[in-house]
Amino acid sequence: MTTVAAYAAPAPKAPLERTTIERRDVGEFDVLIDIKYAGICHSDIHQAQEGWGEAIFPMVPGHEIAGVVAEVGPGVTKYRVGDRVGVGCMVDSCRECDNCKAGLEQYCTGGSGMVGTYNAVGKDGEPTHGGYSQKIVVDENYVVRIPDGLSLDEAAPLLCAGITLYSPLKHWGAGPGKKVAILGMGGLGHMGVKIAHALGAEVTVLSQSLRKKDDGLKLGADHYYATSDPETFEELAGSFDLIVSTVSAPLDFNACLGLLKTRGALVNVGAPEEPVALNLFSVIGGGKTLAGSMIGGIAETQEMLDFCAEHGFGAEIELIRADQINEAYERVVNSDVRYRFVIDTATI
Amino acid sequence: MTTVAAYAAPAPKAPLERTTIERRDVGEFDVLIDIKYAGICHSDIHQAQEGWGEAIFPMVPGHEIAGVVAEVGPGVTKYRVGDRVGVGCMVDSCRECDNCKAGLEQYCTGGSGMVGTYNAVGKDGEPTHGGYSQKIVVDENYVVRIPDGLSLDEAAPLLCAGITLYSPLKHWGAGPGKKVAILGMGGLGHMGVKIAHALGAEVTVLSQSLRKKDDGLKLGADHYYATSDPETFEELAGSFDLIVSTVSAPLDFNACLGLLKTRGALVNVGAPEEPVALNLFSVIGGGKTLAGSMIGGIAETQEMLDFCAEHGFGAEIELIRADQINEAYERVVNSDVRYRFVIDTATI
Repeated sequence: MTTVAAYAAPAPKAPLERTTIERRDVGEFDVLIDIKYAGICHSDIHQAQEGWGEAIFPMVPGHEIAGVVAEVGPGVTKYRVGDRVGVGCMVDSCRECDNCKAGLEQYCTGGSGMVGTYNAVGKDGEPTHGGYSQKIVVDENYVVRIPDGLSLDEAAPLLCAGITLYSPLKHWGAGPGKKVAILGMGGLGHMGVKIAHALGAEVTVLSQSLRKKDDGLKLGADHYYATSDPETFEELAGSFDLIVSTVSAPLDFNACLGLLKTRGALVNVGAPEEPVALNLFSVIGGGKTLAGSMIGGIAETQEMLDFCAEHGFGAEIELIRADQINEAYERVVNSDVRYRFVIDTATI
Repeated sequence: MTTVAAYAAPAPKAPLERTTIERRDVGEFDVLIDIKYAGICHSDIHQAQEGWGEAIFPMVPGHEIAGVVAEVGPGVTKYRVGDRVGVGCMVDSCRECDNCKAGLEQYCTGGSGMVGTYNAVGKDGEPTHGGYSQKIVVDENYVVRIPDGLSLDEAAPLLCAGITLYSPLKHWGAGPGKKVAILGMGGLGHMGVKIAHALGAEVTVLSQSLRKKDDGLKLGADHYYATSDPETFEELAGSFDLIVSTVSAPLDFNACLGLLKTRGALVNVGAPEEPVALNLFSVIGGGKTLAGSMIGGIAETQEMLDFCAEHGFGAEIELIRADQINEAYERVVNSDVRYRFVIDTATI
């Protein structure tokens, strides 16, 4: 066991504070990673505040991890000391169910499903702890390589925000000749704009206001509309092949479905906590789809990193010190971040 | 103009009664059809009772029409006198929008969309009248051929119920190796069982009770479960690649989505009149889809008829006289029909 400095929430809704945690010894197939940067995802806050149900405390959040391999177990074949690597939302899964075999580890149906990077229990029976710490030990099969073209700080948010948008954009056919809308211009949405643009789609941002319009256009959007303006829904009726919604605030889904072309799809990666009222005629007329998507598998996460490197972009970030985490949480809740906070873990 | 005997609803919610209507002269591209049989679809009742909003009266319902060509216009190339033909839910569309060009006339976006077979206004500005009558004049492009292998009475319901199930089953990949559930065992559902089975899928019926289990198994279902039994939802969790819901009563959609495999789809062809409460986590976890589908295009309707003939089945019907229409409406509303009423139009 190795003692490692970390930032943890000691209890639900309590401010995060500096502490130490134990990391397991490096096993045969394990990689010890010196964490350099960790992104702050809105779901860190949901979980630290038990907004999604009972959680495990003390909690070290963080599933957008970028670092450098410091040690490898004797059976490791994929990584060597010094390699630049990342870890996303999961550190293990059953490896035997149909989904795991198909590279859809995020939808693992074995046991209790994928093992989350934090707020979960590992196969050793110990709680997992995430990226707000200086080191982590992870099985090599749940580690991905960060290509040289990407800086580690800008790469960190790709491990959740990047793959969360990349997977549905690919699966639902974003590309040349397709009109794609990204609903919401936050940490997830801004990655959606970059990725959809790089995939060759015509990209429209649908944001509550026009406040971030300049950013959106700079990041690759072709058009930018405010959803607070009712005319947006008239003007854009029947326009899109694909809408990816990153919004977790309540939303008029029937109005959003009206923006789709025939047989278009509205895919949700953000989700309101409360059920939404759906008029089924909104999908029957026009043969439309309302779907969901959750992060992506390990191989697809690697594909996404390679894609981003090839196209020369990471996330837009604000680098912070560890002692700014609690302040950053408040700003995330208030949508006051352009577009992702990343912790410099050297400051823990 | 030709005067034709028909059964019409004179006003909303009024009983249907015998009357006469005028059919237009046979135009250059028109086909005059001697209607032999007309199916009774639940949507006839919705519209005659203004359950779906304001309607046009007097109304001659009926969009499941089977008959024989009696006369053709000089420009008609597809049909000859004596041909066995059918007409479904539409008798025209704009023919110019992307959907019409793509064979998705049912989703026509030109003008006010497709011209319904009844309760609509044709391009001549006159109200359209449906199949509860002895003759109809339709542009040849909106007429389909009924293959010799199908009897006209059993073919009639294919024009709506058949295509309504065939289109989503094909579009969403029902076939060998796929587990497909048909939700609801009525006029639509029983066609879903036959078609999904003929497509090679493993078919499960999910019906409120086990009352029609013997029929379901006889029509091609491999399994039959009651949705009134909570154990059904436990036992079948994560089972299906595709569920087609024909139900228009309120339904627990979150429970139904739980029956899908990862990336499975629940496609609605029936729809509750009231909005449903959807928990978006039901689609996000598992990357699932909730979609809709409305009948099918003209070419696909022909494909469906050819498919049914090749596999040797039409609908299961109860043949009635025209003076039994009002009684039949009551029985449809009470789900007391196995599985489609068809009017012998010689009795009008």
